[in-house]
Amino acid sequence: MWWISDGELARRRRRVLAELSERGAAAFLTYNPTSIFYLTNFHFIPTERPAALLLEESGRCGLLVPRLELEHAQLVARVDEVRDYPEYPGEVHPMEHLARWLKDRGLGAAHLLAEAAGYASSWGYQGPPLTELLPGARITVDAKLIERHRLVKSPEEIALIRESCRWGNLAHELLQEYAVPGASEVEISHRASHEATMAMIRAFGRGRRPVGPLSAFAGFRGQVGPNSALPHAVTINAVLKRGDVLVTGATASVGGYLSELERTMFVGEPSPEQVRFFQHMLELQEVAFAAIKPGVPCSAVDREVRRYYDEHNLWPYWRHHVGHNIGLLGHEAPFLDIGDETLIEPGMLFTVEPGLYVPGLGGFRHSDTVLVTEDGIEILTYYPRDLESLICG
Amino acid sequence: MWWISDGELARRRRRVLAELSERGAAAFLTYNPTSIFYLTNFHFIPTERPAALLLEESGRCGLLVPRLELEHAQLVARVDEVRDYPEYPGEVHPMEHLARWLKDRGLGAAHLLAEAAGYASSWGYQGPPLTELLPGARITVDAKLIERHRLVKSPEEIALIRESCRWGNLAHELLQEYAVPGASEVEISHRASHEATMAMIRAFGRGRRPVGPLSAFAGFRGQVGPNSALPHAVTINAVLKRGDVLVTGATASVGGYLSELERTMFVGEPSPEQVRFFQHMLELQEVAFAAIKPGVPCSAVDREVRRYYDEHNLWPYWRHHVGHNIGLLGHEAPFLDIGDETLIEPGMLFTVEPGLYVPGLGGFRHSDTVLVTEDGIEILTYYPRDLESLICG
Repeated sequence: MWWISDGELARRRRRVLAELSERGAAAFLTYNPTSIFYLTNFHFIPTERPAALLLEESGRCGLLVPRLELEHAQLVARVDEVRDYPEYPGEVHPMEHLARWLKDRGLGAAHLLAEAAGYASSWGYQGPPLTELLPGARITVDAKLIERHRLVKSPEEIALIRESCRWGNLAHELLQEYAVPGASEVEISHRASHEATMAMIRAFGRGRRPVGPLSAFAGFRGQVGPNSALPHAVTINAVLKRGDVLVTGATASVGGYLSELERTMFVGEPSPEQVRFFQHMLELQEVAFAAIKPGVPCSAVDREVRRYYDEHNLWPYWRHHVGHNIGLLGHEAPFLDIGDETLIEPGMLFTVEPGLYVPGLGGFRHSDTVLVTEDGIEILTYYPRDLESLICG
Repeated sequence: MWWISDGELARRRRRVLAELSERGAAAFLTYNPTSIFYLTNFHFIPTERPAALLLEESGRCGLLVPRLELEHAQLVARVDEVRDYPEYPGEVHPMEHLARWLKDRGLGAAHLLAEAAGYASSWGYQGPPLTELLPGARITVDAKLIERHRLVKSPEEIALIRESCRWGNLAHELLQEYAVPGASEVEISHRASHEATMAMIRAFGRGRRPVGPLSAFAGFRGQVGPNSALPHAVTINAVLKRGDVLVTGATASVGGYLSELERTMFVGEPSPEQVRFFQHMLELQEVAFAAIKPGVPCSAVDREVRRYYDEHNLWPYWRHHVGHNIGLLGHEAPFLDIGDETLIEPGMLFTVEPGLYVPGLGGFRHSDTVLVTEDGIEILTYYPRDLESLICG
C-alpha cells in the first residue's frame, strides 16, 4: 500500500462531520495544507496564494485554489468541487473570493468551524481575517481540530509508516556502508538518499504517478565528531575521520507518511568513554520502551527516563525530552515530555530518542519509531541498535 | 563571498533600532526563523519549540532557545546573550520563560514591537499569546517589519544572489546534459543537484563550516510532457520520452540566499505548435523585462504583459502573474501582479516568469532572476533562453 484509500478519506470526513453536528456548525473550513492533504490526498506546494477546503454538513467537500492549481486539483484532489480565483494579490483579494464562495454556498450567515482566522504564509502574504469579510457569519476558530483527529493512527496510516520504516532502513544501510574516513557527510548522505529513493521508485513502479511524496533520506545533519554533541546541528560540510561519533537520521515519505530512525555510529573503534555513554543511552531507551503503555500519561514516560538521568548523574548531558508523535509531519503532538498529560492510546506512534550530549566527545542518541499496542509497544524500526553493529569504516 | 558579514548584521539591527526609536518602543521581539537568521546568522531547524529574538533599544541583542539549541546558538549566533529554557511543553511553558526573560530585562511594562502575538508552529505547538503572560506590557504587532526591510537588497545580498545564480546555472547545465529519453526525472534531478552541490562545497572548501545553507538544486518537479501544463506540478516519477516538453527549475542556496532559473526544454525536436507557444513565451518575458523600471508600480509590469495575452488571444493559457521578489525565501513580496501597487526600486530583485500552459501539449515558462538598477534591470541568470540551446537528448 502506497497511499491512503478513498474509503479512509471518507471515514476522515465523517469524523469531521460528526464534530460539526455535535458543535452545531454548518461547515468546516481550513487553509492548512496538511489538513487539506489529510482530507483530500491533494499534495501541493503551499505559497503566498491561499488555498482553502470547505466541508459542508451535507458531506459536500470543495476546494478553493489559485488559478494555477485548478487543473492540478481537478486531477488529484478527491473532492466534489474545485473553485478557483485568479491570483494573489490580484485585483480582488483571494479572501474576498473565499467570502463570495461561502455566500454562494449559502453559508454567509452560518456557524463555521475554522482552523484559523485567516490565511497565513511567510512568503509575502498579507490579508484580512474572514470575519471582516463575512461579518454575518459566526466563526469558531479551532486550530487543532484535524490535529486531534491525527493523534491516533488508523490501520492504513500504520501500514504506510511501516512501509516508511522499510525504505528508511535501506537508506540507513547505505549510509553506514558509505561512512568511511575521508568521505564527505554531504556526499555520503546524497548517495544513500538517492539510491534508496531510486530503489523505492522502482519498487513502486517506474514512471507511475505517486499520491503524495515518495522519497527516502539518510544523513548526518552535521552531527559528526564533536559537533554531534549539538542535538539539532545543521550540515557543517564535515569530512569523516577515524574516532568520530556520528548521529544519523533516516526516513522515507510514503504517501506523505514518515518514520524516524536515528543511530549513534562510530568511525573505527570507540573510546572507553564513548562506550560508556553509548551504553547509558541504550539503557535510557530501554527505560522509555518499558514505560510506554496505553492509559499512562506521556509525562510518566519522561519522568521514568529522568529518573535514570538522576540515578546515574547524567544531567549535564541532558538536552531534550524522550520523543514525539510522528505521521504526516516530522514532529506531532503529543510529546513524551514531563509537561504533556495526554494519555497514551493504542494506535499512537512515538519516536523514542532520549540522548546524551557530551561537549568535546560527541552525541549519543538512537531514535526508534514505536507503535502503541493494546498492552505495550511494537518497535517498527528494526535497524540494529547494538554497538558492534554500528562501527563503520 | 559566502555569507553576510558582521558589519551588515550591525547595519540591519541599526535599522530596526531606528524604527524602535521612531515608534517609541523599547525593544523588538520576533519568533520568525527567517527574521532571526536575518539579524543573527543563526540558521537552525524550527520546531514546536519556540525560539525568540529580543533586540533592545540599547542595541543589545539576545536569543531565547530551547535547551537543545543552547550550545549551537552560542557557537553560531552573532548575539550578546543566549538564554535557554528546558523543553516544550515542559513543566513551565516556554512562553512563561519568555515573559520572565522580558521582566528580567526590565521590559515587563514596556512598549514592545513584535512580529507576532505569540509563537506558532504546525508541529504540535500550542501556547498563549504574550499579552496574556505580560499584561503590563504594551505590545504592538507588526508582522511585516523585517519583511519590509528585506524588500530592497543590499550589495552583500546581491553578491550572494549572484553567487547563487552561478551554482544554479551549473546544476541546470548538468540537468540538461542528463535529460535524455528513457531517463527518470528523479534520477536526473538527484544527479545534477548532487554534482552541483559537491562542486559548490569543494569550491567553498572541503570540510569548512558554512554559515547558513549551502546547496544547489535542479529538477523538473513533475513538469514533464503533458504534465508540464500544470504550473505547480509536484514530482510524478516521470520517465522522459522523445517529444516531451520539460519545464525545469534550478537554484542554489548561498548563505541562505536564493536565485531562480527555469527553462522550457524539449526532448528532441519540438512540434510547430510547441515552437509557436515557446516564441510567445519568450516575447512575454521580453515585454516584462522592458517594463521593469524604478518608480513604476509592480502592477504596471503585469498590465503590460497582460496586454500581450490580450493582443495574441493567449488568455486560455494564462495561469499566473509575472513574478515575485526573491531572497531568503523562494517567494517574497512585492509581486509583479496587477494588484500590487508597490513602487519598484533599485536593489529589488524579481523573477520574471510569465507562462503559457496548454492542456495536452505542455507548459512554456522561463524564469530569470533580475536586479532592478538605476534605469532598468540587469538579468542575473545567464542560462541560454533560445530554443535551439534548449533541445535535449
